[in-house]
Amino acid sequence: MTKIPSFRPQKPSRLSRHPEPGYVVKGRIWVEKDGELYMGWGRVILLERIDKFGSIAAAARSMKLGYRNAWLWVEAVNRLAPAPLVEKSTGGAGGGHARLTDEGRKAIKQYKGLRARFAEFLKETG
Amino acid sequence: MTKIPSFRPQKPSRLSRHPEPGYVVKGRIWVEKDGELYMGWGRVILLERIDKFGSIAAAARSMKLGYRNAWLWVEAVNRLAPAPLVEKSTGGAGGGHARLTDEGRKAIKQYKGLRARFAEFLKETG
Repeated sequence: MTKIPSFRPQKPSRLSRHPEPGYVVKGRIWVEKDGELYMGWGRVILLERIDKFGSIAAAARSMKLGYRNAWLWVEAVNRLAPAPLVEKSTGGAGGGHARLTDEGRKAIKQYKGLRARFAEFLKETG
Repeated sequence: MTKIPSFRPQKPSRLSRHPEPGYVVKGRIWVEKDGELYMGWGRVILLERIDKFGSIAAAARSMKLGYRNAWLWVEAVNRLAPAPLVEKSTGGAGGGHARLTDEGRKAIKQYKGLRARFAEFLKETG
């Protein structure tokens, strides 16, 4: 079985480089809509895990995120995005399922592109 | 008298731009030394105010920062910088004075340069 790395809320969302020996420039980047957090590293990881597991509960568990928080993040991104990123269906015996929409896939790609450009910026600056 | 704008811990340290209508990319940037925060927007403001007022207490008061925190920030930047950024002298009747060193002026300039390049990056990305 493939081991899925757990999600640590702080570390992976910080990009950094060394401008002088011992000194490290670090940064974070995120997207807001109307002053509210729309997309950040944690939310992108959650969306990817939902895509992988087909369930918000399993996605949350895999990244050690509380189910309630995961649910609130999905609610927020669906509300703030141009179109819903996650489609929920209340299933039968197996419980609820969730799947990523095309808009969700686009949102992940956009944020990752932004983050890659930011990493490039940190690599070039100093 | 010139009114000195108060320091709000969150807002001014976040740079942002609009990539799509309604969506705003925001970010923060800071410098660490050996995993410890060395320089960020709040510390730069404190250093500038120390330069202006010649006193850590007055600088802290002007930006609504607790004196104890201001003192800890000065202690940290002095310890983490290649050479002390702030020189303290325990004065006579008027209490202690503090002044910015040339290294302190250099540190402010470096961080502001980094921040300006980051603002440029946010303006160009999207």
